[in-house]
Amino acid sequence: MVDNLEAVFSRGAHKMHRSAIRELLKVANLPDIISFAGGFPAPDLFPVEQLKEVVSEVLEKESARALQYGETAGDPRLREILVERYRRDGVEVDVKNLMITTASQQGIDLVSKIFINPGDTVICGLPSYLAALQSFAAYQAQMVGVRHEVLLDEIVRRLIDEGRKPKFIYAIPDFQNPSGTTMSVVERRLTLDVAHKYDILVVEDSPYRELRFDGEAQPTMYQMDGTGQVILIGTFSKVFVPGFRLGWMLADEAIINKCETAKQAMDLCSPVFDQKITACFFDKGYYEPNLRKIIAAYREKRDGMLAAFERYMPEGVRWTHPEGGLFLFLTLPEGLSAKDLFDIAIRENVTFVLGEFFHCDGSGQNTLRLNFSYMSKEKNEEGVRRLASAIRRLMGG
Amino acid sequence: MVDNLEAVFSRGAHKMHRSAIRELLKVANLPDIISFAGGFPAPDLFPVEQLKEVVSEVLEKESARALQYGETAGDPRLREILVERYRRDGVEVDVKNLMITTASQQGIDLVSKIFINPGDTVICGLPSYLAALQSFAAYQAQMVGVRHEVLLDEIVRRLIDEGRKPKFIYAIPDFQNPSGTTMSVVERRLTLDVAHKYDILVVEDSPYRELRFDGEAQPTMYQMDGTGQVILIGTFSKVFVPGFRLGWMLADEAIINKCETAKQAMDLCSPVFDQKITACFFDKGYYEPNLRKIIAAYREKRDGMLAAFERYMPEGVRWTHPEGGLFLFLTLPEGLSAKDLFDIAIRENVTFVLGEFFHCDGSGQNTLRLNFSYMSKEKNEEGVRRLASAIRRLMGG
Repeated sequence: MVDNLEAVFSRGAHKMHRSAIRELLKVANLPDIISFAGGFPAPDLFPVEQLKEVVSEVLEKESARALQYGETAGDPRLREILVERYRRDGVEVDVKNLMITTASQQGIDLVSKIFINPGDTVICGLPSYLAALQSFAAYQAQMVGVRHEVLLDEIVRRLIDEGRKPKFIYAIPDFQNPSGTTMSVVERRLTLDVAHKYDILVVEDSPYRELRFDGEAQPTMYQMDGTGQVILIGTFSKVFVPGFRLGWMLADEAIINKCETAKQAMDLCSPVFDQKITACFFDKGYYEPNLRKIIAAYREKRDGMLAAFERYMPEGVRWTHPEGGLFLFLTLPEGLSAKDLFDIAIRENVTFVLGEFFHCDGSGQNTLRLNFSYMSKEKNEEGVRRLASAIRRLMGG
Repeated sequence: MVDNLEAVFSRGAHKMHRSAIRELLKVANLPDIISFAGGFPAPDLFPVEQLKEVVSEVLEKESARALQYGETAGDPRLREILVERYRRDGVEVDVKNLMITTASQQGIDLVSKIFINPGDTVICGLPSYLAALQSFAAYQAQMVGVRHEVLLDEIVRRLIDEGRKPKFIYAIPDFQNPSGTTMSVVERRLTLDVAHKYDILVVEDSPYRELRFDGEAQPTMYQMDGTGQVILIGTFSKVFVPGFRLGWMLADEAIINKCETAKQAMDLCSPVFDQKITACFFDKGYYEPNLRKIIAAYREKRDGMLAAFERYMPEGVRWTHPEGGLFLFLTLPEGLSAKDLFDIAIRENVTFVLGEFFHCDGSGQNTLRLNFSYMSKEKNEEGVRRLASAIRRLMGG
C-alpha cells in the first residue's frame, strides 16, 4: 500500500461522508427493531406475479437486445412511454428532453458533476434530502439552506453581492424528503421568479410525486417554467421497483446532451434488462393499476401513523401531515435533543433518522424523520407507541 | 433557459467529450454495414434458456429482497462467490476487499472521483481504453501516455521532478483494449516495481481476463503486488450479460470503504435484481460452462479473423495476434491515415474505430481497432475482405 493514502485521496473524497441512514439500516435489520429509518417501499406490494409474466416475455421476445449494451440515453420505448405520460398531463416535452438514469441518485450525481466547481454555491431546503447534500459535498459545493421560499430572493441577492451566485436551487416540491410537506403553487412560483430574476437553474427532485393520497396535484416546476430552466429528476424506486435502479431526467436538450456525455463515462448505460421489463410492464397496462394499489396502501399507513400520533404523543410534540410520499417529520419541544431521544428509543427497539442530518447548517436538532411505507400498519402503530414512550422519558415524564 | 448555459457548466463538463465510438454505433446499426466498431459480446451466446429458469427462481424465492434496495457494496452472496473464485485461483482476498459496481465503467469513475484533483497526472498506455480516458478527462486529469513499460521509470521520475507525481498508473494487462496485447510477467513486474519505488497506486482494468483462448494465464498485478497498492476492476459485461450492468472492484479495504461512500452518493447500490440473478446463475453451476462456450466461440472468430487477414491484407499492413479478448489492432504503413481509410471503408459498408481515439497524445493516426466478437464468423471474413480492398484503394492500388 502507498505510504499515506489519505494524502492521495482527492479533495472531493475528503468531503465525502458515509450516509448516516445507510449505516443505520444495518441496525434496522435486527429482528425486534421497528425501524422508521429507511425510505424503502413495502416489499409485499411488489407486483411479483405480473413481473414473472413480463420477464418471461422479455426473455422470450427480445433477449438479444435486453441482455446487450443499450443506448446511454436509455431504452427508446421506455423514454417514449415516459414522454407520453408527461404529455397526457399537459407537459410539453419531447424524447430529446428525457434520458434514463441509474435511478434518481444518478440524476443528482449528474447535475452535480456537470454544474458544480469546487467552492460553488448550491441552494437547498432546510431540511433537504441527505444523499443530495452528500452528492453536492462530494463535488465540494457550499450549501446554503433556505427555510422558506419567501426568504429566497433576499438570500440569493446577498449571495450574488458576495460573488457567490448559486449554480442551482435544489428543491423537492412534492411530499419532501424528509419533511413530507408539499410546496404550494405560490411557493413554486416564488422559487421560479427568483430563478428567472437572477438567471439561476432549478433542480426539481421529484421521487414521490406520483404517490399523492389526497388533495390536488400541483403542477411541476418544470411545467410551470416552460423555458428549460428547470431540470426534473424522477425515479421508479418508490412507485415500482427500487431493485431495478431506474430513474429519469427531464431537461432542456442542451442539458440532456451534456448529461448523456457525462453518463457515457460513468456507467455507459443504465440496466438494459430492467429497462425492457419496465417498458413491457407499462405496455401491458400494469403500471397504473399497480400505482393505484400502492397509493391506497400507503394512504392507509399514513392515516394509521397520524392516528397513532394523536393517540400516543405527549403535548408539545408537532408533526407534519403529508398528502403523499413516504415520510413524516416530527418536531420535539424546543431544547429537547433528537440525539438523546435516539439513545432511549433504540433501547425500546424503535429507530428513526435524526433530523439534523438533513440540515446543511447543523440546525434541526430537535427534529426526526419517520418513514411509514416499509413496516406493516400494525408495526407502525406499535413503533409510534414506543417512540411516544421514549419521548415521555426524554421529557422526564 | 439561463442566458449563457456554457458559462454555468462546470470546468469538468467542458472537458467531457462524446464517445466517438458510441456515436459510431449509430451508423453501425444500418442494415448492410459490417461493423468492427463496438465491443459488444455476441448476442447468440447469451444463455437465455438458463436465465429463464434462474429468473423464475429468483422471483419465486426471493422477490422481496431482489426487487428492494440493496447494500451499496453489493449483494452479499455475489461478493462471496467472486471472493471464492479469486481464492480458488490463489489470490488472497476477503469480502471486505470486494465491492460490486454498476459495471466496470463505474469502477473507473469511482477511482477517478476518489483520487483525481483537477490538474493531477494519470499514467495510461499508448493506446488505452477510450472511456477510461474520457472519465479521467471529466475529472480534469492530465494524461501521460506510455508506449512501453521499459519507459515507465524514466517518465515517472521526470514527472516527479516536475512536481507532477502521477496519482495512479492505469493499465489493462490482459488482451488490452484496443490493442489486444497482453503484458508479460516481466512487464507486469516492471510496472509494479515503478509503483513501489515511487509509491504510486496501480489501477488494473481487467474486463477481458477470463476470455483466454490459448497460452498461459499470467497472474493479475493485484495478486503479484499483494500489498494493497493495486486496484483491480472487473466486469460481467464481456463474459456474461452486459445488459445487467454489473462489475466489481478488488482493493485494499480503506480504498473499498472510500469507494462505498462515494457510491452511496452516485447510485446508492447497483441493480439488485440483476445481482440476485447473477448469484443464482453461479450457484446453479451455469457460469463456468457458459464461459467455456463463449471462449470457444470467440477463439473460432479470432482464428477466422487472423486467417482472413493473412489471406486478404496487402503487404505492409501489420496486426496484433491476441490470445484472448475481443479486439485486434491494425497498423497501416507509416504515413497512411486511418481517417482517410474510414471514409473509403464506410462506402464499402465496413466500419471500425480510429486508433487515434485511444491515444491520449494524438498519435496512432495509422492505426485502427477491430472487434471480432459481435458479428458472425462469415461477416467477420467478409468485413476483412472489404477492409483489405479499402486499404488497397487507400494505398493507390
